[in-house]
Amino acid sequence: MGKVVLVGAGPGDPELITLKGIKYLQMADVIVYDKLVSRELINYAKPSSFVIFLSNDDIEVDLLRKYALEDKLVIRLKNGDPYIFGRGGKICQELIKDGIECEVIPGVSSVNSVPAYAGIPLTFNGVSDMVTIVSAVSQGGKLFNFQKIPDYGTLVVLMGGRRLEEVSKWLMAKRDPSEDVAVIERGTYLDQKVHVNKLEKLAEVGNNLATPSLLVLGNVVRLREILWKFR
Amino acid sequence: MGKVVLVGAGPGDPELITLKGIKYLQMADVIVYDKLVSRELINYAKPSSFVIFLSNDDIEVDLLRKYALEDKLVIRLKNGDPYIFGRGGKICQELIKDGIECEVIPGVSSVNSVPAYAGIPLTFNGVSDMVTIVSAVSQGGKLFNFQKIPDYGTLVVLMGGRRLEEVSKWLMAKRDPSEDVAVIERGTYLDQKVHVNKLEKLAEVGNNLATPSLLVLGNVVRLREILWKFR
Repeated sequence: MGKVVLVGAGPGDPELITLKGIKYLQMADVIVYDKLVSRELINYAKPSSFVIFLSNDDIEVDLLRKYALEDKLVIRLKNGDPYIFGRGGKICQELIKDGIECEVIPGVSSVNSVPAYAGIPLTFNGVSDMVTIVSAVSQGGKLFNFQKIPDYGTLVVLMGGRRLEEVSKWLMAKRDPSEDVAVIERGTYLDQKVHVNKLEKLAEVGNNLATPSLLVLGNVVRLREILWKFR
Repeated sequence: MGKVVLVGAGPGDPELITLKGIKYLQMADVIVYDKLVSRELINYAKPSSFVIFLSNDDIEVDLLRKYALEDKLVIRLKNGDPYIFGRGGKICQELIKDGIECEVIPGVSSVNSVPAYAGIPLTFNGVSDMVTIVSAVSQGGKLFNFQKIPDYGTLVVLMGGRRLEEVSKWLMAKRDPSEDVAVIERGTYLDQKVHVNKLEKLAEVGNNLATPSLLVLGNVVRLREILWKFR
């Protein structure tokens, strides 16, 4: 009987994959990846493995199911971690419903690693002792209900890069407009870009950021001035 | 000139270290680790490297500084990720103040990986679209001010295992006592234990959990029944 393993590929830098992830890639009969996963990771595949580039999420579960039912070890490489806004739970739920084993190998999440590569710790003694994570856009394209966010601590917003004006309006309804915010485009990739601004000027960054993008809001952003090594 | 690199060692399972972390371990002149880091990771050290077991956090920065000033490449292995309640920011700040380069290699955080190893995704379409992370105890042993937590979404509480009765009382002041909660002792280690309960019965788990421990509160906990592979 085949099996599906969702492997957290890390945030972009191919060296942030785990040893366990590499081991599964080396054993895989079938590897499924997408545009958010570094192509270099495919180099770990054995020569006989079948590598599929997925461009349409709608067929994801069907594809994984098909090969698992053909007795294959199917590895699905997922950007970041499969269980933080990665739909990993849903995918496994559907496969398990069909009697297919589904395992999840955690990965380095964008949530902590992308800010780290920009010199921003999510917590810091005396500055922030709470972190909240949301995705700006949910499945189906609906904007997150930002009234739910706490008015305290560090806030990480995933996938806000195409709706930054709306997101900034909602954030200002709940948070202090003078708080610092960092917008990080393609964090940990070689072409990473970081914009730091006051929340009230966030919309000026524009609505057309490269994918993936991530936003960090809160006083920890200021620590970048000290901690960013290429300053 | 020497240099300090804080490397996220992952949550416990030694295979959850990153490739980048292993590369730094292989180059290190000095490696500093502690009881939360898997001893097996030291096997990546080159034979000439000097390996130090740190039992007292108070001397951590002095130790790192000392060897960096002796022109060594000093690797500090940190459980989980150095920038999520890992004091990584503070350590780097102090070293940079003394003119010592300090780099951070993100790791797989306990926050996502420990729940994953217990079959619990932090987010799930239609179940939870927000995650908040706090540490029950701050430096100096003070309890976190749980009045700050949102009453919505998934909550992850680190380091609550020795104060579970107090924590449970505070959580109930803010969250629905009928919510599900999972307490995970030594998550991802071979001796991992998971307790699932209603919040109102959380205190029954006792006050003497093994270190490290982690608590997940919210409706995602129920998904363990479907997603946990060793059921």
